[in-house]
Order: sequence, then C-alpha cells, then structure tokens
Amino acid sequence: MVIDMTRDSSGGLSPSFVIESAVRSYCRRFPMTFTTASGSTITSTEGRTYLDFLAGCSALNYGHNDPDLVTALVDYLTRNGVVQGLDLQTEAKADFLDAFRSLVLEPAGLEYRVQFTGPTGANSVEAAIKLARKVTGRSSIIAFTNGYHGVSLGALALTGNISHRTQLGFPMVGAQRAFFDGYLGPDIDTAALLDRVLSDPSSGFEPPAGVILETVQGEGGLNAASPQWVRSIAEVTRRHGGLFIVDDIQAGCGRTGPFFSFAEFGVVPDLVTLSKSISGIGLPMALLLIRPEFDIWNPAEHNGTFRGNNLAFVAAAEALRKFWTDDSLRVAADRRAGIVAAALADIARTSFPDARVVGRGMFRGLNVGDGAVADAVCREAFERGLVIETSGAHDEVVKVLAPLTTPDDQLRDGLEILAAAARSVTSGRPPMAVGA
Amino acid sequence: MVIDMTRDSSGGLSPSFVIESAVRSYCRRFPMTFTTASGSTITSTEGRTYLDFLAGCSALNYGHNDPDLVTALVDYLTRNGVVQGLDLQTEAKADFLDAFRSLVLEPAGLEYRVQFTGPTGANSVEAAIKLARKVTGRSSIIAFTNGYHGVSLGALALTGNISHRTQLGFPMVGAQRAFFDGYLGPDIDTAALLDRVLSDPSSGFEPPAGVILETVQGEGGLNAASPQWVRSIAEVTRRHGGLFIVDDIQAGCGRTGPFFSFAEFGVVPDLVTLSKSISGIGLPMALLLIRPEFDIWNPAEHNGTFRGNNLAFVAAAEALRKFWTDDSLRVAADRRAGIVAAALADIARTSFPDARVVGRGMFRGLNVGDGAVADAVCREAFERGLVIETSGAHDEVVKVLAPLTTPDDQLRDGLEILAAAARSVTSGRPPMAVGA
Amino acid sequence: MVIDMTRDSSGGLSPSFVIESAVRSYCRRFPMTFTTASGSTITSTEGRTYLDFLAGCSALNYGHNDPDLVTALVDYLTRNGVVQGLDLQTEAKADFLDAFRSLVLEPAGLEYRVQFTGPTGANSVEAAIKLARKVTGRSSIIAFTNGYHGVSLGALALTGNISHRTQLGFPMVGAQRAFFDGYLGPDIDTAALLDRVLSDPSSGFEPPAGVILETVQGEGGLNAASPQWVRSIAEVTRRHGGLFIVDDIQAGCGRTGPFFSFAEFGVVPDLVTLSKSISGIGLPMALLLIRPEFDIWNPAEHNGTFRGNNLAFVAAAEALRKFWTDDSLRVAADRRAGIVAAALADIARTSFPDARVVGRGMFRGLNVGDGAVADAVCREAFERGLVIETSGAHDEVVKVLAPLTTPDDQLRDGLEILAAAARSVTSGRPPMAVGA
Amino acid sequence: MVIDMTRDSSGGLSPSFVIESAVRSYCRRFPMTFTTASGSTITSTEGRTYLDFLAGCSALNYGHNDPDLVTALVDYLTRNGVVQGLDLQTEAKADFLDAFRSLVLEPAGLEYRVQFTGPTGANSVEAAIKLARKVTGRSSIIAFTNGYHGVSLGALALTGNISHRTQLGFPMVGAQRAFFDGYLGPDIDTAALLDRVLSDPSSGFEPPAGVILETVQGEGGLNAASPQWVRSIAEVTRRHGGLFIVDDIQAGCGRTGPFFSFAEFGVVPDLVTLSKSISGIGLPMALLLIRPEFDIWNPAEHNGTFRGNNLAFVAAAEALRKFWTDDSLRVAADRRAGIVAAALADIARTSFPDARVVGRGMFRGLNVGDGAVADAVCREAFERGLVIETSGAHDEVVKVLAPLTTPDDQLRDGLEILAAAARSVTSGRPPMAVGA
Repeated sequence: MVIDMTRDSSGGLSPSFVIESAVRSYCRRFPMTFTTASGSTITSTEGRTYLDFLAGCSALNYGHNDPDLVTALVDYLTRNGVVQGLDLQTEAKADFLDAFRSLVLEPAGLEYRVQFTGPTGANSVEAAIKLARKVTGRSSIIAFTNGYHGVSLGALALTGNISHRTQLGFPMVGAQRAFFDGYLGPDIDTAALLDRVLSDPSSGFEPPAGVILETVQGEGGLNAASPQWVRSIAEVTRRHGGLFIVDDIQAGCGRTGPFFSFAEFGVVPDLVTLSKSISGIGLPMALLLIRPEFDIWNPAEHNGTFRGNNLAFVAAAEALRKFWTDDSLRVAADRRAGIVAAALADIARTSFPDARVVGRGMFRGLNVGDGAVADAVCREAFERGLVIETSGAHDEVVKVLAPLTTPDDQLRDGLEILAAAARSVTSGRPPMAVGA
Repeated sequence: MVIDMTRDSSGGLSPSFVIESAVRSYCRRFPMTFTTASGSTITSTEGRTYLDFLAGCSALNYGHNDPDLVTALVDYLTRNGVVQGLDLQTEAKADFLDAFRSLVLEPAGLEYRVQFTGPTGANSVEAAIKLARKVTGRSSIIAFTNGYHGVSLGALALTGNISHRTQLGFPMVGAQRAFFDGYLGPDIDTAALLDRVLSDPSSGFEPPAGVILETVQGEGGLNAASPQWVRSIAEVTRRHGGLFIVDDIQAGCGRTGPFFSFAEFGVVPDLVTLSKSISGIGLPMALLLIRPEFDIWNPAEHNGTFRGNNLAFVAAAEALRKFWTDDSLRVAADRRAGIVAAALADIARTSFPDARVVGRGMFRGLNVGDGAVADAVCREAFERGLVIETSGAHDEVVKVLAPLTTPDDQLRDGLEILAAAARSVTSGRPPMAVGA
Repeated sequence: MVIDMTRDSSGGLSPSFVIESAVRSYCRRFPMTFTTASGSTITSTEGRTYLDFLAGCSALNYGHNDPDLVTALVDYLTRNGVVQGLDLQTEAKADFLDAFRSLVLEPAGLEYRVQFTGPTGANSVEAAIKLARKVTGRSSIIAFTNGYHGVSLGALALTGNISHRTQLGFPMVGAQRAFFDGYLGPDIDTAALLDRVLSDPSSGFEPPAGVILETVQGEGGLNAASPQWVRSIAEVTRRHGGLFIVDDIQAGCGRTGPFFSFAEFGVVPDLVTLSKSISGIGLPMALLLIRPEFDIWNPAEHNGTFRGNNLAFVAAAEALRKFWTDDSLRVAADRRAGIVAAALADIARTSFPDARVVGRGMFRGLNVGDGAVADAVCREAFERGLVIETSGAHDEVVKVLAPLTTPDDQLRDGLEILAAAARSVTSGRPPMAVGA
Repeated sequence: MVIDMTRDSSGGLSPSFVIESAVRSYCRRFPMTFTTASGSTITSTEGRTYLDFLAGCSALNYGHNDPDLVTALVDYLTRNGVVQGLDLQTEAKADFLDAFRSLVLEPAGLEYRVQFTGPTGANSVEAAIKLARKVTGRSSIIAFTNGYHGVSLGALALTGNISHRTQLGFPMVGAQRAFFDGYLGPDIDTAALLDRVLSDPSSGFEPPAGVILETVQGEGGLNAASPQWVRSIAEVTRRHGGLFIVDDIQAGCGRTGPFFSFAEFGVVPDLVTLSKSISGIGLPMALLLIRPEFDIWNPAEHNGTFRGNNLAFVAAAEALRKFWTDDSLRVAADRRAGIVAAALADIARTSFPDARVVGRGMFRGLNVGDGAVADAVCREAFERGLVIETSGAHDEVVKVLAPLTTPDDQLRDGLEILAAAARSVTSGRPPMAVGA
C-alpha cells in the first residue's frame, strides 16, 4: 500500500476522525466515510457505491454481508446466543467445529487439532511460533523475503516489511531469513539453497524450530510459490528437524481455489494459521491447526479473552455450510480467476507492456514495476468507483482481491474500470473529477 | 485459574470438542456446553441457568447480551452496515469516536488520540510498547510483579506468570521487573524503590522507555494499588524519561467505579490500553489512547486486518450512550461494590478467618491463601449454579467479576451461593451432586 | 572511577598517545607516562615514583614485577619455553595445573575441572553463562545490583553499570536483576526476597540458569556480602535449579584473605571465575572452575587463540608456590588489612564523619558519600605521590587496593598520604603543585 | 578442526591434565606435552621436534620465540618495565603506538584511532559491534556464511559455526547473515545480492549498523574474497548507512602479503579488528582501529583489566621494527607463498585430483572435499613430525599456516611431509608408528 503522508482531503475526513491516531492507513487512500456494504460493493455517506476489490484484504472472500450469514447472526443475537464466552464450550463453537471437521478437514483427509487463538492472524502466528519452539527446544523460525505475518513482536520478527519495524535499534529476535521461490531468479532453486545452508554447519544458519511461509505472498506482491517449491521446503524443514508451518491467513479459505491454498500441493503442514475469511463475514477470528502429535500445549499456556468470538463462529459455520458443501464456489471462483487473469493480461498488453500478471486463482495482481504508477492507477480507479489497492515491496503491484462470489458482470465492470484507469494513467490524461 | 489437567468429565464434553487443542482452559473447569446468555446469567444445553460472576473476565461489565446493544447490532446488520472495513472510515467508527470523545474523554478532561489496534488487549499492549520505544529510543519497559499484559511475544515479556512462558531457554527481551504496590510489605514504598534503582547508575536497571501497570491486577490476584502509589510511579517514570502506561484492559470501563480506573488518582497516563468491556457486549475490540504529542506513528506502522470491527463499534457506542451519559451506572456499581465487599468479609469471617478481601469497586476477590481451597470453593459454587473463577499467583483468590449491572437480588443470590460453597468446603461436607 | 572528560593535561600526554581512542580511561586521571614498576611502586618518565594503591585493579595482589616471578619469566623466555601454544599441553600449563591442584584446590577440599578461557575475566564470565545455560536449558542468569562482570555482550547484560551500555535501544538479553546484600537496608534479607520471587510463579522472575555474584563488589563500591547471605543465595539458587556462580575475578587470589573469597563461607560454588591476579604478575589469564558433573562442554565449544598464555602460566605457578605454600602471606595480609581498616576509620573520624569503611580484608574502601569529594581526594593523593582510585555507583568510594605484599611502612606511608589528601580536601586548602 | 571425541592417547596425556575441562581441543589432536619452541618448530617433552604449520592459528606469523623479540622481553623484564598497567600511559605503549603509526598506518596512508580492547580478538569484535551500533543507532550487524569472529555472546552471533552455539533455544541477537564471495557459485555476485536485499524494503533485511568480513576466512575454510567483491561490499555497506568492518585478526599482520589484508584492495574500512600476530610473539593483544570521525566512545565505555598488556606491546613494537621497516619480509613471504601454492597443487595432482588450492599468500590450504580425509592427512603428518590442522565447514581443508619467516628449506620439508602423508592416506598404507 502506498502511504499518502499528506493530509486527508477535506472532502473526505469527517470531523469524527480528528482524534484517530496518525497510524491509520487505508482510510487515507479512500477518504470517504462508508455506511453500508453488500456483496462486492460498499457505499459511502454521499451515496456513492463502489465496487470493492480490496475486500478486507481477503477477509471477505464471500463478499460483504452475505445475506445468509447476516440472517444467521441476527437469529443468533435475537435468541440471545452466547456472544462472549471466553473459551467455554458453546453451541456456536460446537457447530463451527462440526462444520469445520466435516466440511473442511475430513474431505481434505487432514487430521488437525484446532486451537482458537486470539482473534487476529498475528496472534495465530504467535501461537505457532511458540509451539514450534516448545516442540523442538530451538529458537529460530525461518521466514522468507517479502513475507508478512503480522506486527506483534513475535510475528514482526518474521515479517519482511521494514516499515513496521518501529525502532531499528531494537533487534528482532528468533528469526532467520530465507529466499522465497523465485527471489533469486528462475535459475536458482531457493529450496535447495535453504537445504544447503542448513546442511552447512558453518553457514551461520541454525537448525530451525520451524519454517513459515505463505504459498502466495499477499503483502509481498502476489508472489506465488510453485507446488514443487513448497514441497521441497516442507521436506527440507523436516530433514532439519523443524516444523513446517503454512500461514494461510490470506491465501486460505478458497482465495487460491481450494479451501487450503496448499491442498493440491501434496504437503501436509505441521501447523497452519487461518484467519481473515474464516468467519465468512470479516469478523475477528483466528485458528491454529496443529498436527495431533504436536498439540503439547499445557492448558491456558496461550490464552486470551476473545478466543471465543461466538458471532464469528456462527457466521463461520454458516459460511462453511453455504460455500463448502459442494464444489460450486470452487468452480465459479476458478472461472472468475480466468476472467481476472485474462483482463489483467489485457491491461498489461494495452497499457503496461512490461507488466507481469502475478498470483494464483482469485489472488491476483498486475506488477507494473513502479509504485508510483500502481498508486496512480489505484487512485484513478477509486475516482471511477473501484476500491483497489497495491502491494509489493515497492507497492508496485495492483492487487485484485475481489470476493470469490463477485458476479461475473460486476467482476467485468470492475476490471473495465481498472483498464480505463490504467489507460488514463498511461495516456497522461488528467484524472476524472470526483463525483463525475 | 486452577488448571485441571485431568480429562474433562464425560458428562460435559460434547463430541464436537474432541478436536479442540489441549490449550483450552476455562472449559475444563466449567465442562458444560452453553447456549444462551442474558444479563448476569448463562444457560447450558441441559437447560441449567448459571449466575455468571466470571463475566468474560471483565469483558462483560454490562452483562451478557444487553438488549439495547443486541438491538443495535441487529439493526446494523439488518440494514447492511459495513461489518468488515479494515480501518476505513465508517459511520459506525465515527459514531463510536463521537461517543467516546463526548462521553468519556471530554468529561474526564482527557485529550487522547485513539488508535484502533488489532482487537485484542495484547495487541494494544504491543502497540504501546512499540510506541514507547519509538518515542524514547530506549528498549526497556518496566512491568510489575504479578502483572498480566497478554501472551504475544512483546506483551509476554511484561506478563509475570511463568505458565505462559512456553520455553524457558528462549529469553524474554526488553522488560525489566519492578515490585507492585505492597509486594514487599506495608513498610516498603516500592515506588521509592523504583526511583532509587533508576537513579542508581550501577543498579543494573536501565532508563525505561515506559512503565506499564494495572491499577488493580486482575490475573495477579486483585491487588489494588493505592492512588498515591500510582501517582508516585507516574512521577518516577517521567523523572527518568519514560512514558507512563496504564493497562486498563481489565480494570477500565467502570470495573473499579469510574470509566478509567485511574480517573480519580490525579494522574494522566501517556498511553492507556483498553479492551475487554470496551465493546459493551464482549466483542473483540481494543484501543490504545495516546497523548497527542506522542502520536508519532507513521501511517500503517502498526496495522492489522481486524482493527475495524464495526459490530464492536456499534455496540460500543450504544453502550457508552446507555451507561455513561449520566452517573446512574456508577452509583449502582458503587452500591453493589459495597454489597460484594460486605458479603466477602462475611464469608471470610464465617469460613476463612485468615482470608483478606482484596480489590476495589466491583473488581473484588477473597484471598483465601491457598489455591486448593479457592479451587474447591469455585468448584462447589459451580455445582450450585455459579460460574466463578480464581486468580492470583497460586490461584488463591476467589474472584468476583459480576457484571456491574447485576441486579441486587441476583448479586446477593450469587454471593449466597459463594458463601454456601465456602461453608461446604470448610465443613468438609461432600459436594452437592450435579443437578441437585 | 570518576571520568575526566576534559582534555588530558598537556604536561602528561605524550605525543605518542594522540592516536589512542577516546575510550581510554585511567590514563586520564593519572596523566603521566610510566616506565618501571616494582612491588607497590610505579615510576614515571619524569622519574617520580608513586605508591600504587590501584595495583591493576586487584590484578597485582603480589605487587608489580615480583623478582621471583620476573626471574621465572626470564628463565622461561631464555630457554625458549613455548610462549604461544593455543591450548596445547605444555610444560608450563602442566606446572600451573599441578600447582593449582596441590596448593589451591586440594587444601581447600575443592574438586573442580579447570577451563582455560580467553585470558580476560569477561571471557570467563561468558563461558560460565553459556555453560549454565547448557546445563539447565534455561536462559536467565540472575545478577545483582552494582555487580560488575565485564563488557562483552553476554557479561555486559550482567553488569550493573549503565555507563557501559552503549546504546539503550539495544536490549540486554538473558539477565534478571536481584538485590545485593544490604541494598534494601539492614532489615531486609534480599536472599529471602530472591527466594520469594523465584517461588512466586507470577512474579515475573524466571527459574534461573544460574545466579552470579561477587562476594565483595569491587566496581560496585566495595560492598561486602555477609557469609550467611552468600550461603543463602547458594541455597536459593539450587532450590530453584540454577547453578551457583561466584565471580572471584577481583575478590579472589587472596584479596579478602583466603585464596577464594568464599573459602570460609561454607559454600562450594558450581562455577567460579578467576582472573586478574591469577597470573601473579598481571598478565592476561582467566580460568573457569567447573564442578566435574557440570563439565559437559563439547571439545572446542568455547575456544580462543590465547587460552594458553604460557608466560602467564609460568608466573602463575611460581606465584602459587611462592605465596600459597604456607600461610605467611595470609597472616601478613590479615595484619595489613587491619592497618588499612584502622587508617580508613581514622580518616573518616578526622575528615569525613559520615563516611563508612567498607569492604573486607585488603579489599577496602572509604565511602565518603559523594563522588566529587572522593574524586578530589584521589586527585590530591596523586599529586602527593599515591595512585588511588574511586569506585561505586557514584564513584563515592575511595578504594584501597594496595598489593597484599606491600611492606607495612609503605602501606602506612600511602595511608598517610591519603589522610593528608583527605584533610586537604576538607580544609579547602589549595592542592599541592605538581612536583612539589 | 576435526574434534576427536575419543579419549586422549595414554601416551600423550600427562597426569597434570586430568583436571582440565573437556572443552580443550587442539591438545586432543596433538597429544604431546610441548616444552620449547623456536622459529617454525616446537619440541615435545620426549625430545621430538615438530615443524609447526599451525603456528598459533596465525598468531605466530614471525615464528615461535623470535630471538630479538625474546631479547626485548627479557630486557624489559630485567629492567622492571611496567608489566601490568591497566590502560595507563606507559613507555611500552608509547613505543608501540609510535611504531604502529610510523611503520604501519602512515606508509599505508591510513588514519585511525587505536583502541586497546581486552586482549582477545573476540573482545575487539565486541567493541566494533558496540561502536557500530552507537554510531548508527541501529542493531543489525551483517556477517557472512562461514565467518568466524569469536565466541563471546556478541561475537558469537556473527560466527557461522554452529558448534559454538551451546544452546539452540537461546537466540543469537543482532546479526543478519549474508553470503560470502563465491558461496552461491561463480555466477552469482553476492555483493549485488546484498545490495538488493538491503534495497528491498520488504526483504526482511534491516539497514545495517555494520557489515563485518574477513578477506580470507580462516576457520571457514581459507575462502579468499576477491578484491572487487570486498570493494563492492564496502560500497554497499556505506550506501545503506552502515560501518564497513574488516576483521583482520587472522588475515592481518602480513599473513596474506601486506600488513593489512585489504591494503591493496582499494578500500579503507571504518573499523578494523587486529589481534593474533599483532604482538609478534603470540602474546594476548588486540586492537580496534577506528576512523577518527567514529571514535565517539565515552571514556571507559568499553574497558577491561588487560587492555594494557605491556609485554605484548614490547614485543609488538620490536616486531614492527624488525619486520615492517622495509619490504624484505613481504618479498620473502610472497616467495614462500609461491612455494606453498605450488606444493599444494602438486599434492592435489598426485593424491587428490578433485582438491582445490584455496586461500591467498601464506594463508593457504588444500580443500580435499572430505573432512575424514583431511583429518587422516593431518594425523599422518603429525606422526611424521608436522603440526598441521584442518578448517572449513566440514573440516575438509588442510590448512597451511606456516610462519611467514619459515626458512625455505624447512618450508619445503614440511610440505614434503604433507605430501607423503597425503600419499600415505590415498594409498591406504598403514600409518607410521609413533616415534618411527
């Protein structure tokens, strides 16, 4: 995301927000106040409706406010279902666990214990780190270039982006950095390189407690690892005695096609973090999936007040039943992924000959090679009614995170806005006036 | 909380939960499955209704599912209010900020910037730590004996309880430990001691980036600091160039009387963490309050997907309007605090002559001096229909965290159950059978 | 030591030293160039001979250039004894080990393995830390207020003095701080306090890998722990599963009376660090003594080029034979300690009524309560021909570290200079001119 | 070095050594007791004289006990020169500084401040790390694969070899790892790669406080960096705001030809560590050279008792005058380097066709690709009268560290022994009997 350090436009900033901290971010780029949202659209106080291809940074794979999920929440609230129950057993949690086991784990042939961590992805990563250290007695977690795993202190050590490192005098502890698939060019197998440095007792790399990766790096620029590379990393990790951890917070819940992004890669991670779209409606919720033999936590060893966000459980169970009982979402998402990929290729051809279409499934982007250009495209698109963001080390990737459920015509509309914005930027035409 | 390492009773564990991780905790002590909740009660699948004096560990200061809050949520959902909006400006957020400013900050004469952190208390603490380090360029955060600030890596270094330190070979970084008010007995002023070690250039204590404290330590055993001590710590902190941070996650939102636990202490912290009851209904939400001069964050420097839990904002704003527009809640809570204190003193007199009533306001407990006894009392109380927990270093404190809104008769009923449980434990009578 | 930040006096600074780093220290206070040294005296290029009551900060317990040690070195060099032999077995090392075993360990009834670490006290401390962590699998080393253990990174975390902490943003890792004997006043047993915090699972103190202490804190201000306190700390350490480590670098080799400062305390440490006077003549040498059951090093796990400083071994063996074959040094040192103590008490009485005589044996000082005063006394003494320094958190202690072998008349001469300097400072007389 | 975990041969272990710690290392491979040494030879108690091509791991570049250095030491001792003087100005130190300035710094056109650190290479590295952090306010020091910088905690984080990492649960703090020249094969410019990761704000690599390298990695296997690569690293380091640090502890003092190993590379490091051969005779001594603008130490900020090893200064000054007044040593060393290189190439041709001659100048080795083979060669060579060791990640390099002053005939004798040992190993002949 390109950060606009300038003052929010006076048109956008409601007086209510003057006491909000300078740390705020997305609201700087989209300086409207939003009121309602539905499916792939979000509407501002001024009554303008935007297509939303940011979609909660992949927290809204099923779109805003799916009506069945809303109904489930309203019903649950109306009958006084437990909202806050710490980690007590509740019907809502039982219902979620049953749905998750029968609709997600069993069809995928996976056996995992489910830990409800604090309801943020970062907290799930923190739990994974601690558990890997407890299991192995080692300290080092290996993370990859351009990886993003959160900004609490343990997770932050694994996150590549320097902009979150508040104070460079304070060292990040317990992380080692390896190269993601393709980082060193097509000719260098970075999994083999990791194996080499871990096999070299004098390389300075320590035997890892765990290795954590995203199969597609969202914040890092929609870098998609090849299945073979992911398999190799899993093998290397285990050969050297570490736990293989997939951070599926952004890539999971169908974003790349199957529920788990690694489902068709032939690997079974030791630990999997899930969050973002797991609740189905964008409520805070996070899980750590643990292979049973590694579930060696003591009771309450990792705890937190909001581990049991029952509204999230209700929506999550409903979402699993609605979208993962059969393959219709998957089929539609695959089709839409094709539409996106083709449209992005078209935009490249038309406006950015050197751009590359990146990502996998509905987790796609266009790397235009220049953060300022990508920023201009997104700004122009917003003027034209599309919420869309950048990512990547230099914010050089225009990131399409449309809900998987976006109707094809809306999807095409949004992509056409993007194409027009791209043409506008490359043609140097002045941007459209607001409200035009 | 006393952890029962034995298997959950077969009566209580629903098959749905067999895949839940061993890390689960409260559900071990209260091995029922709960379905609905209202005010100060919670009801199990078997149809038994319990009084709830655990109340989400102070996340439910206004009780379960306050009907006005539920209505507000249902209305918001029904009209498709934005549920997931990252940190975009939404009407719900604006409404919360307006209410928070006008009903909380302005009446207290406080000027703060509001940071929406990831929606857990721990994440708010992580943000506070980072910001204090950024402001001062120092690394050390001073925390106190028996303090609890969360279990993500940064917060964990500040948390006293060893049971969360998964791996003792992995050092906690960036924390120094000081003694809470009274830890060294009534004759030693631990604030003066802190001043002394910070003034002694050879003491081994470093100039702090910040000092963080709870005015009443919840997990640590309901230890209430004196106002004078809190003032002294604030002065010492600033004399030595650090930021004074109050972790009001558990003690705030009226638990001790005023909205902020420190409101009547004559101090204005530099940073304040809030969470737990801030949403009013127990939904995940957390804030960091920042004195304007210290709001030096770069945009997105500390970020996260769920910073904008709009359902929480809706309930939070409604709760502020309902409970903090006038002083009626405060008056009622003070009255109830008197009832609780008197009842606990009675129990002490009757059953535990050496016990001490601890805490402040509705944040009270009975320190019976022995974790096994406190555990037995809580178990016996649960059999009799009261959800209640222990805290303290050795779980030796029976902790009364009834909602501030508990009707007086329910409050007395619950306290009578507690008294009966205490008598039962001390008389050695066999516990009541379940369901009797 | 009071650091004079002003430019060295032009009279003292030889042009040779203009390229020496600003980090230099003692030479700022004693800005002469010295050429020869013998016994308790040291002589400048200008031909002035000073009594030396700094004595290499206790690295010269037997005085400068003991003639028998010099002869042994000259002989060894003349017959081409191995000077540099890494950690090879040499005759010189064998000779030292034989002498150390028969003259030091066996008479004291101690069984230790001897590790030759890098030849600095700090390196010996680093080895002790690592070994304690390896033995216990824990990370935390407990060190005390006002302790000094060196300035390499591992040792620095244990050192109390902030002036060595170059960058406060970089945290010290793996240390916890406890209170030395008497730090909290005569009424508080800080060993019992340590036991309490280690027994309190919520205190924030972790079970230690080890506890390290000096029986008399040299840099910290000549604070002498009571034997009972040292015994208690040893018991507390072991009760909580840590290794009990005595840093006898400055207090050992007879400085407090017996060879080991703890010899008559009824404790056998698990690890003992030795350096400073161990070579007898002030050459770099350091040992770590290890109880056999804890000698679990792998070969070369802790190594270094200068572990085998054979010249130091030669002098060390000769020193042990000369000074530790019978009790004559001990008897003389005890007598001289009495002379020092009486003289310091006299100075207190005469010049500083509030001053306290501190330390033990020949490890004594006068705490005058004010660093500027102590500084003035030392400067005045230097003008009068006595090299003497301060120590303590505020450099408020005038530190008498005369060689144990100082002839009684020289000892009295030095003490008389000190007394005169003290009188001069308190009387406000102008200092003597240099060379007067 | 291959560590022999088996018991020392009964023939070699003197009873004196039974109390030496298990951490000892070289003495396991060369289990003789040595008495005298001269030039390039060392003699055991049994009267056998060995050629010494280990030479104190490059601490004896001028051989054992150079007669002029011995004479200087004997003279100094005989006239009671100050042996132990803390960091006082002494004639010996002045003499060394004058010689170092006039014979080393000025001819090389270098302006440095000279810090006398604790007398070990590791301590010099610790000082460099701290100073780089102080200058930049950053925490991260970048070190390279296969680097060796010592085993105290700060230096250890930079050292690649895992065998010194006592406890893998305890994290190394403040280091980042980069790839040495050639580590990724001849086609990958690892300096460009470092530039890339430091330029990529999302790579996970932080802006460095400093980058530290050995121009030839001794312990790492005689890997010689190209001058171009060293220049590039210096440029990259400064481009990203860090200090460029050369650890010349092993490669300096003429080992690769010029006094400083980087002298002819066209770079001026910001900090240079020196130790090992700096004293000329293998006595403990270490320096940190600091560009004047970075000499921002406070007085005594990094201190230590043995910073002033005056015997080392005496020998060091004498060695500089003897060996660095003209270029005769350099010329001879270059000639001998040619002899060594040719002989090693011969051995490769004859015995190990796949072996590679590695290193530079008199800092050479033969990489035979297999630690067991290299070990066998060294053992066989020792039986035949040559002390020689291995290095490298897998101890696969036979390391020739003969003194630069080794007479050509002795050099050829030693190389012939090595050749014979190699032939013996490859021919499978039984090794020679001891003493044959």
